[in-house]
Amino acid sequence: MLRFLPREEKFFSLFSELADNIVKAAELLKEIVVNQIDAEITARSIKKLEHINDHLTHEIVNKLNKTFITPFDREDIYLLSMKLDDVIDYIESAASLIVIYKIKTFTNEIQSLADIIVKSAKQVQAGIMELHQIHHVLPICIEINRLENEADAVFRQGLAKLFEGTVDTINIIKLKDLYDDMELATDRCEDVANILETIAVKNQ
Amino acid sequence: MLRFLPREEKFFSLFSELADNIVKAAELLKEIVVNQIDAEITARSIKKLEHINDHLTHEIVNKLNKTFITPFDREDIYLLSMKLDDVIDYIESAASLIVIYKIKTFTNEIQSLADIIVKSAKQVQAGIMELHQIHHVLPICIEINRLENEADAVFRQGLAKLFEGTVDTINIIKLKDLYDDMELATDRCEDVANILETIAVKNQ
Amino acid sequence: MLRFLPREEKFFSLFSELADNIVKAAELLKEIVVNQIDAEITARSIKKLEHINDHLTHEIVNKLNKTFITPFDREDIYLLSMKLDDVIDYIESAASLIVIYKIKTFTNEIQSLADIIVKSAKQVQAGIMELHQIHHVLPICIEINRLENEADAVFRQGLAKLFEGTVDTINIIKLKDLYDDMELATDRCEDVANILETIAVKNQ
Repeated sequence: MLRFLPREEKFFSLFSELADNIVKAAELLKEIVVNQIDAEITARSIKKLEHINDHLTHEIVNKLNKTFITPFDREDIYLLSMKLDDVIDYIESAASLIVIYKIKTFTNEIQSLADIIVKSAKQVQAGIMELHQIHHVLPICIEINRLENEADAVFRQGLAKLFEGTVDTINIIKLKDLYDDMELATDRCEDVANILETIAVKNQ
Repeated sequence: MLRFLPREEKFFSLFSELADNIVKAAELLKEIVVNQIDAEITARSIKKLEHINDHLTHEIVNKLNKTFITPFDREDIYLLSMKLDDVIDYIESAASLIVIYKIKTFTNEIQSLADIIVKSAKQVQAGIMELHQIHHVLPICIEINRLENEADAVFRQGLAKLFEGTVDTINIIKLKDLYDDMELATDRCEDVANILETIAVKNQ
Repeated sequence: MLRFLPREEKFFSLFSELADNIVKAAELLKEIVVNQIDAEITARSIKKLEHINDHLTHEIVNKLNKTFITPFDREDIYLLSMKLDDVIDYIESAASLIVIYKIKTFTNEIQSLADIIVKSAKQVQAGIMELHQIHHVLPICIEINRLENEADAVFRQGLAKLFEGTVDTINIIKLKDLYDDMELATDRCEDVANILETIAVKNQ
């Protein structure tokens, strides 16, 4: 079993911070689409979290390039930070689309997707916390995969409804973009799960 | 020249299975758009093939993480399985769009793209079979690249026709999405060809 | 400090050629949207530059697979050539969309994006020239990041304007695609900057 040595602490705490901010951003997005809190102000808060993560990611990659011995395989640390970055980018992009497109009414599918994104983000956070316990990581990865399948089904149902004749073309275009970004956020969580599993299996 | 040792057989047979299922999925997609067989039932069959490939890919990655000596460079095996996964994902996504969007009329360009996808998938299958014979792999990679260029030309022609004034806006949106997924399936075949070439050149 | 040995010269000159062609392609795209020079003829010239880069990239990857000692980490050379390829692909795709969609009027945002793409391409070119001087590379990477943020803001402003009511639906669809490709070209320049930084930091 893998034991964290002192020099590894820093990587670990940087990844935890990244995951914490992803959960916060996901919860803010859910606030916009479920509780209808002010989209413009909230999207700015999400943008700030995304910027903080950009800096943290930069710190991880720099540290990685300067560190001879790393707690996990170098390429897995690199991939993990890139994919965590993608997750928050899609959350931020979804929030910003709501502002740019002035979307005021949120379909059941948008609300469900926001909920699934929060759940996936929390699983990602848990996965990073439990990275040294392989028998804890694997069920988390399975759950993230299940959530991605659920998001895909919701996405496809939402897409089908858009074309049933009640939505005007301009709103079809807007909502399709929003569905896309939200579904991609859960897709990238699945990518994160795959890397977490790889790290856990290699270090078991 | 590379010789397959017993321990390598398993990787090889898993990749063959992945490629076989990609060919089957591509042929089913062509059945939908050329022979107009029931899209809903056929899309479900393609979905099943995609699920099987998900499990096979998972098996490859797990095996990879637990195997000390691999037949090819570890990162090439990883990349190859990821890109093969992308190919069937786009084929499945195209089939599901036909169902979700209730597309009943298939343009010449959609039929041509389906045909090119089948041809590319068969070349991918051949490339994996011939992986140990570099002088067989290279012409296959060249052919996959040629097919991707052909798909790109068909895609652009189809896109131009959509905007000639005879297609209504809703159908432009639907068909553009379908063209996109089909063109991306051939793009990912080209990515597979690049990795096959890398493996072949490294092991010559 | 890293010194280029004779055997490294070839990689270096291939990367310089790639970057030179990206700058040329970006300048041609700007000519189309700012100076309204013939789109069809110019898009063909861009396509030719893209083809040349395909061959150069192929040469780099082949050389990489056959070379035992490389000037930088093998995976960084590979990633750098892939991402440089993506940059010119998006420039070419933007130019070809202008032809396919018969776009004749270019918004301020399209003109700004073209200008930012030229600036980013020139920074990429400079970054590759200065790869052995880490204190020169880092400010270049920071500038490419700044340009990507600028492009993102222009992109979002352009998107918002599309939906203000004065643009018809067909043109919304067309211009959204063009904005997408142009924004993605600057995104890929940022990916290039990240790899340049990685190479510079590792070799300092």
